[in-house]
Amino acid sequence: MNNFVFENSSKVYFGEGCVKEYLSNILTSYGDKVMLCYGGGSIKNNGIYDEVVSVLTDSNKKIIDFPGIPSNPTYSKVQEGISLAKENNVDLILAVGGGSVMDCCKAISLGAKYDGDIWSDFWARGGVVNFEPLPLGIIVTAAGTGSECNGGAVITNEELKIKTGRDYPKLNAQFVMLDPTYTYSVPKFQMVSGAFDTLSHIMEIYFSEPDESNVSDDISEALMKNVIKNLRVAIKNPEDYEARSNLMWDATMAENRIIKLGKKTDFQCHQMEHQLGAYTNCNHGAGLAVLHPVYYKHICEVGKKKFAQFATNVWGIPKDNKTEEQLALEGVNALADFIKEIGMPTTLKELGVEENINLKEIAESCFIVGGSYKKLTHKEILEIFEECK
Amino acid sequence: MNNFVFENSSKVYFGEGCVKEYLSNILTSYGDKVMLCYGGGSIKNNGIYDEVVSVLTDSNKKIIDFPGIPSNPTYSKVQEGISLAKENNVDLILAVGGGSVMDCCKAISLGAKYDGDIWSDFWARGGVVNFEPLPLGIIVTAAGTGSECNGGAVITNEELKIKTGRDYPKLNAQFVMLDPTYTYSVPKFQMVSGAFDTLSHIMEIYFSEPDESNVSDDISEALMKNVIKNLRVAIKNPEDYEARSNLMWDATMAENRIIKLGKKTDFQCHQMEHQLGAYTNCNHGAGLAVLHPVYYKHICEVGKKKFAQFATNVWGIPKDNKTEEQLALEGVNALADFIKEIGMPTTLKELGVEENINLKEIAESCFIVGGSYKKLTHKEILEIFEECK
Repeated sequence: MNNFVFENSSKVYFGEGCVKEYLSNILTSYGDKVMLCYGGGSIKNNGIYDEVVSVLTDSNKKIIDFPGIPSNPTYSKVQEGISLAKENNVDLILAVGGGSVMDCCKAISLGAKYDGDIWSDFWARGGVVNFEPLPLGIIVTAAGTGSECNGGAVITNEELKIKTGRDYPKLNAQFVMLDPTYTYSVPKFQMVSGAFDTLSHIMEIYFSEPDESNVSDDISEALMKNVIKNLRVAIKNPEDYEARSNLMWDATMAENRIIKLGKKTDFQCHQMEHQLGAYTNCNHGAGLAVLHPVYYKHICEVGKKKFAQFATNVWGIPKDNKTEEQLALEGVNALADFIKEIGMPTTLKELGVEENINLKEIAESCFIVGGSYKKLTHKEILEIFEECK
Repeated sequence: MNNFVFENSSKVYFGEGCVKEYLSNILTSYGDKVMLCYGGGSIKNNGIYDEVVSVLTDSNKKIIDFPGIPSNPTYSKVQEGISLAKENNVDLILAVGGGSVMDCCKAISLGAKYDGDIWSDFWARGGVVNFEPLPLGIIVTAAGTGSECNGGAVITNEELKIKTGRDYPKLNAQFVMLDPTYTYSVPKFQMVSGAFDTLSHIMEIYFSEPDESNVSDDISEALMKNVIKNLRVAIKNPEDYEARSNLMWDATMAENRIIKLGKKTDFQCHQMEHQLGAYTNCNHGAGLAVLHPVYYKHICEVGKKKFAQFATNVWGIPKDNKTEEQLALEGVNALADFIKEIGMPTTLKELGVEENINLKEIAESCFIVGGSYKKLTHKEILEIFEECK
């Protein structure tokens, strides 16, 4: 295991009814002005908005409403939120939504107490340590990104066409509420896309050095199998509480830093998807579904030992007399088959990317990370994009 | 998954050289008076004491020495530590040792800032919420109890002959340093006993309701397999860094509350061992090794589905055409065989318990917990003790 430093300060409340049971008491620790942040308004249709507002009102909080956070949250939306928080001298940011709302709110909580330019100081350069964000609480309504229990925020700078994230432990939410029944009304495509995002996070950590016996990898295998099993159940019955509970907690466990411990991590596929998203605003989980099998076919020769382990331990493919190369490829094919089975797109065309898009420009805008088994070139990223057409 | 609330505030520094790399900087956050707590003095022979004292001295700290914390730490030793901490107006308690030192120091950190009687208010009754312990840092020198990343402290009240523990999140250490090379000099029996304690913690959580698909159970299986595999390696080569790293982090993961989430947990076997320890001062992991297979033979009929899963998923026993009962029993037998293989005692006699001890009195002093598949009676606990003779 590589050396590591680990902390995770978020307090988690999990289970049906947790908002009603705990939120009111939690709010007594904060001042009166609560900035209520959410997305396109689906929480107004499924009753979650009313439930939260009723607790806030009963707790005598002044609500500063901040709706309309888009998927792939933009830096301009972050700036709008920062201004609103500063103008109203907000005491607590309460994010109610999925990954986009959470990430946008983490960036707002940072910017609301920071005088410099947060894009250039935090997202572009990274490394600022001494800052105190505005307190943040999160109520999750869509599972997948696992953003609820880390300090990471992926933001799209639409001017620069860069979508990128950083994980600052200080940006962890102070409290997080996870009620699996809140995710029941998420449309099936979004549910599957979120679960695939979770699976992708685990794979991006698992397929990286070191590869010797490592309990983090063993936990990752357990998580991957759990996602696969429970997503199949949830597709058949979206209101299966056990399945949705597992998927919700899998998402958190994939990104609360635990399975990254002692590992280098990869996230090259996320980098490619981020830039695809920055240029096309495609759905994140669906973009990952298109890219992963093709990316893995490009690197599985170099990481064949681990891909063969993935085939046997995650997909239950028998070893028989197969070579490591054969097993490795069967593992990647099993992943590709699963993506088809769960109804995710398998090509850029199915993803809705226009045929005449400049893939070369997108490929060249991708960051190259150092954690992969094989360090890609921009040329190879373009090849991967082309093979995904 | 059952509903849960989760938090874990300890910051962890893991890996070879972490004390030298980080301790000095960490100490700048605390006052000048550091109470240095340890056990029988083995850290003076293996160089760890000198390494820690040198960092403290270079950081201009005043060291208040508190040696001699015994295994199965006693309430009287806790009281001695509380007095010393109060007299010297200590700013930070630094625990350097294994589970006994950590647990004793957590109790001291609590008592040093509490005016009432901590045994009756915390250990006997539980439930006190509003208190602020003295800051505590931990440097682990023996892996197993996993006490480093929770707020639990098992203390023996020698007058009342009760050994019991509570987990208060506020008693979590503020920082924890885990250097696997610090565990190299632990005698083999202690190393094995510690690893078995870890395995026992995982089993006590795994063998409890709810049993439907639960990612916490899947993670537990991954951890159990990792302990078994790496303990075999470490017995052959105690200085195998990978094996000792895995065992060290397995111990933490078993008790940092993660795998308990959504589970009821059992810990009936721990209750029995605690009282055996309170009466005989036997080694904790070794006591658990004696009790576990016999205890599980008593409950595996009721929990046969889970014990059968344990047999196939943890021990790799083929299902063939076996009944669930057969598989369940084979799982328990595989555990018993493993205990023999790693050289742990398998009877009370081998554990060193005197033949004429009053097992009835010990059985009757045991707490009955509610998490087991089968609620034991004191009569059945006595039967288990008798079968262990």
